[in-house]
Amino acid sequence: MKIDEVILASKSPRRRELLDQIGVVYRCVPSEKPEVLTSTIPKDVVMELSRQKASDVAEIVEDGRERLIIGSDTVVAFEDKILGKPKDEQDAFDMILMLSGKTHEVYTGVTVIYQNESQQEIHTFYECTKVFVDNLSEQNIRDYIATGEPMDKAGSYGIQGYFGKYVTGIEGDYNNVVGLPVSRLYREVKEKFSIEL
Amino acid sequence: MKIDEVILASKSPRRRELLDQIGVVYRCVPSEKPEVLTSTIPKDVVMELSRQKASDVAEIVEDGRERLIIGSDTVVAFEDKILGKPKDEQDAFDMILMLSGKTHEVYTGVTVIYQNESQQEIHTFYECTKVFVDNLSEQNIRDYIATGEPMDKAGSYGIQGYFGKYVTGIEGDYNNVVGLPVSRLYREVKEKFSIEL
Repeated sequence: MKIDEVILASKSPRRRELLDQIGVVYRCVPSEKPEVLTSTIPKDVVMELSRQKASDVAEIVEDGRERLIIGSDTVVAFEDKILGKPKDEQDAFDMILMLSGKTHEVYTGVTVIYQNESQQEIHTFYECTKVFVDNLSEQNIRDYIATGEPMDKAGSYGIQGYFGKYVTGIEGDYNNVVGLPVSRLYREVKEKFSIEL
Repeated sequence: MKIDEVILASKSPRRRELLDQIGVVYRCVPSEKPEVLTSTIPKDVVMELSRQKASDVAEIVEDGRERLIIGSDTVVAFEDKILGKPKDEQDAFDMILMLSGKTHEVYTGVTVIYQNESQQEIHTFYECTKVFVDNLSEQNIRDYIATGEPMDKAGSYGIQGYFGKYVTGIEGDYNNVVGLPVSRLYREVKEKFSIEL
């Protein structure tokens, strides 16, 4: 089954590229509600935030038309401590130094809402990927911060950018680290809603 | 230490994008010699072909100037059988059906040649990444072939394209599957030649 409309409840260019990559036609309606957190456990945080984003957008667009709404949130976790986006360059430096030479996890929570004129179903899941980072010198870190790449990214790095040269390997879904586990999303939507993205 | 010139002995747009991604300035000089194979073992094949490409280009550009030349070759291996580029759509269909619901390996061999007016050093290595593929229906495979994406790719798929939705996870370096393990390359060049790419 195909669906009339898919909405991405995010304006992240990386998530958009991933949906484009697998050939999904969608439109973007970002949520504008402030994030409300009731947990500090990475998997719970990303699932909760993805649900808030998708639910907010579901209310905005509600008109009885059949559609899927996809909300998503990504965090980097090191020893169960959540690393969000850096506040400033010093914060970015500290985060990258923490990740250097170590293994960390990237969690993305995804909520898919199916709605039509008579019903709404909400399905939430998360995906976790292990990332192995090479040893970086302080100069490497300063050079990387000077590229400007870390400042809008959870954990202060982008695996699909310059930082790729310091990622020695991963275990799990690469696209989950970029910001949206499209393979898992495709399967979940197929299984739960019998819809082929 | 920085180096005067880096040459990529390949015209693959995916390898070029990966070097661009990590900020390497280089020029492309593809090898034009026919490939000569003396092995059927995946890791030996990719190392041998990467060495042929880099050596051929090293001869073409030889003028005493200090430079690095990077040659690279990628194959997909399923149960130690090498899958190259598909001959036609039927061949692509058979390969994708073989990979469906299974785990396979992607091998990339890399040769880096350092040369200046008085010496030449050749360094070759390979990187292997495991790739987990979802179950595809025959219709999924036909739809994928209709995108045209499989025809120029080893193993008949591109992980960075539509096929991404069928890759449930990997173990190892994602960029190695795309065609060049830039993280390993960066480290090897630093360790063997004391050069920062």
